[in-house]
Amino acid sequence: MTITSFNPPQRVLMGPGPSDVHPRVLSATARPTIGHLDPTFVGMMDEVKELLRYAFQTKNTLTMPVSGPGSAGMETCFVNLIEAGDTVVVCQNGVFGGRMKENVERIGATAIMVMDDWGSAIDLDKVRDALKSAGNVKALAFVHAETSTGVQSDAKGLCALAQEFGALSIVDAVTSLAGTPVMVDEWGADAVYSGTQKCLSCTPGISPLTLSDKAVEVVRNRKTKCPSWFMDLSLVMGYWENASGGARSYHHTAPVNALYALHESLVMLKAEGLENSWARHTKNHLALRAGLEAMGLGLMVNEADRLPQLNAVTLPEGIDEAAVRKSLLTNYDLEIGAGLGALAGKVWRIGLMGQSSDAAHVVLCLSALDGTLSAMNAPIKSGVAVAAAQKVLFG
Amino acid sequence: MTITSFNPPQRVLMGPGPSDVHPRVLSATARPTIGHLDPTFVGMMDEVKELLRYAFQTKNTLTMPVSGPGSAGMETCFVNLIEAGDTVVVCQNGVFGGRMKENVERIGATAIMVMDDWGSAIDLDKVRDALKSAGNVKALAFVHAETSTGVQSDAKGLCALAQEFGALSIVDAVTSLAGTPVMVDEWGADAVYSGTQKCLSCTPGISPLTLSDKAVEVVRNRKTKCPSWFMDLSLVMGYWENASGGARSYHHTAPVNALYALHESLVMLKAEGLENSWARHTKNHLALRAGLEAMGLGLMVNEADRLPQLNAVTLPEGIDEAAVRKSLLTNYDLEIGAGLGALAGKVWRIGLMGQSSDAAHVVLCLSALDGTLSAMNAPIKSGVAVAAAQKVLFG
Repeated sequence: MTITSFNPPQRVLMGPGPSDVHPRVLSATARPTIGHLDPTFVGMMDEVKELLRYAFQTKNTLTMPVSGPGSAGMETCFVNLIEAGDTVVVCQNGVFGGRMKENVERIGATAIMVMDDWGSAIDLDKVRDALKSAGNVKALAFVHAETSTGVQSDAKGLCALAQEFGALSIVDAVTSLAGTPVMVDEWGADAVYSGTQKCLSCTPGISPLTLSDKAVEVVRNRKTKCPSWFMDLSLVMGYWENASGGARSYHHTAPVNALYALHESLVMLKAEGLENSWARHTKNHLALRAGLEAMGLGLMVNEADRLPQLNAVTLPEGIDEAAVRKSLLTNYDLEIGAGLGALAGKVWRIGLMGQSSDAAHVVLCLSALDGTLSAMNAPIKSGVAVAAAQKVLFG
Repeated sequence: MTITSFNPPQRVLMGPGPSDVHPRVLSATARPTIGHLDPTFVGMMDEVKELLRYAFQTKNTLTMPVSGPGSAGMETCFVNLIEAGDTVVVCQNGVFGGRMKENVERIGATAIMVMDDWGSAIDLDKVRDALKSAGNVKALAFVHAETSTGVQSDAKGLCALAQEFGALSIVDAVTSLAGTPVMVDEWGADAVYSGTQKCLSCTPGISPLTLSDKAVEVVRNRKTKCPSWFMDLSLVMGYWENASGGARSYHHTAPVNALYALHESLVMLKAEGLENSWARHTKNHLALRAGLEAMGLGLMVNEADRLPQLNAVTLPEGIDEAAVRKSLLTNYDLEIGAGLGALAGKVWRIGLMGQSSDAAHVVLCLSALDGTLSAMNAPIKSGVAVAAAQKVLFG
């Protein structure tokens, strides 16, 4: 059988990422490939760094995109800042805290776990106790916005605790960046990584990263070499960090076209303004919530800890949740997410991230859910969701 | 200063990679993003695996693209197959063998180096001696096509030596794949990785990889966990290796749009046919060589070991080589490569890879070099290169 060109369907992406990518970003990624040492490309790299500093709200010199997905960004933080024998306090209240634990242990360091329920925010008192009783903790690692549950934790408070105990802070902001405030300098965070495919609405595969000067000093003063050559920031910095016009040393071939896309998505973010982007994510979340509640569906996470960009929705009784998702995909080209890990089969995850956070997405999702659930005789109230959302959206 | 959309110049890429990317591939990468667990995407993943098996000339089940550049592909081989305490014989005759040494040592394994001159092929007798005297070698690692020098080594002979001594073979085929024969099954190679941005003429950022069943068994029977979570094939396989229709487990978000590009470039390779692609690379190399020699310029590597797709050209006396490259870029939008490592300032590297390997590229490069060097009063013979190339190309 001859394999021919792949033409994907046009989906509406309302899962936990990737989110819908704007045609401007798709068009940018298709621009002509140039060399990774081309002076024009080097100029673009400097712009990406400046735009990422805006997105992260930081002045950190070491602010750059890692040439791999969010999990490569996570690992870049751990393998550069943590050495064998170190102790790290890791908070887990979902899937991604568990991944941090794996990162710590594979380095030969010790992870002291602070566990919270899936669906709850991280409990700062428990973190304080762990930091106090452990003593000599190298870093506190936590997930700001848990993609598996839709929970937001108190990043500012957690970074302050890390500082109080002389520990570095390592923060997962994959799902939060651009959707909800990520204030790297105000928090005093030391290492923060994100992903392109969530609220930046860029194509997947790149991980924005920022390190405080203090964290960079830790990298420079390691006793041992970074266990990863590919992720070794002391080498990567030679390519990304030299001033424009200075000599860039070759480390690896940058993902040129993927960086065109990131550049364009950041230009769009800057034009909208972070505050406007945060407000948009909040408003559309409230509209979705109003529609879901009118329908009789609930959100799993308590109100104070909810991420506006990722909604964990409890299921109506007696419904085959996979059949609903399949029906939405088949009939409406609409993707919503399944539960992950401990929440598999227990919730849907509806993303309102980046370009997927607007009135049209909210109303389509509510209508498609209403129609699909009604056809399955689910115990919901039909025909009222859109009006409820509309009221939040337009008064 | 407001940063606006980035519009790269249209370059002609004749360096050591990236090579020119065909509009079909650029257009593919801009197709609508869909979810990494979308059934349509999963179907495309299976096609990518099948097409990569063709490119690598293998039936290996574990054949897939790593979500990162070639150096991530290299590291994926080492961190999965080698454990602390193992011994690896590493051949070095350029930059990339040195990188393999870094990979081995950062794992806590021992690298026994077999050194050859930059510009020479790997000496099989020295490798045999090293394997014999070391005893109990876990793997033999070598670069098939050294991008830093333009040298091709005898991969078939080296893989046979590895088998003779009960060692795995780890092969860097970044620059060779699709340009010159890479015969994974015929060689009996155990782990081979490549890059998308060389003779596949795809956008940079992804690393095709194939592992023999024997190598997969080694991964499955490790005594310790893979030091990298991101590159752990025992986890990545859960996403890439389950049969179509079976359950795919989530590991990381795949670089969806980059994989569209890879798929399209592989469809184009299959349509041309590997043998035709190899023959094209050879013919254009011979044409470039004829033109360079007519001009009075030489190739550094001896004829038997030359890579057709990457030509290390010796410099005319008294010439500022960086000024020549800058002039080619400014006047002709033409990128050729500088020397790397020990060859910095001593050669140019002219790539004829993938889409950059055709008659138009050859003739443009020769003409632009002729004009530029003549204007600098370099000691070359002007006005004869194109005719010499033309004779090879069209008789």
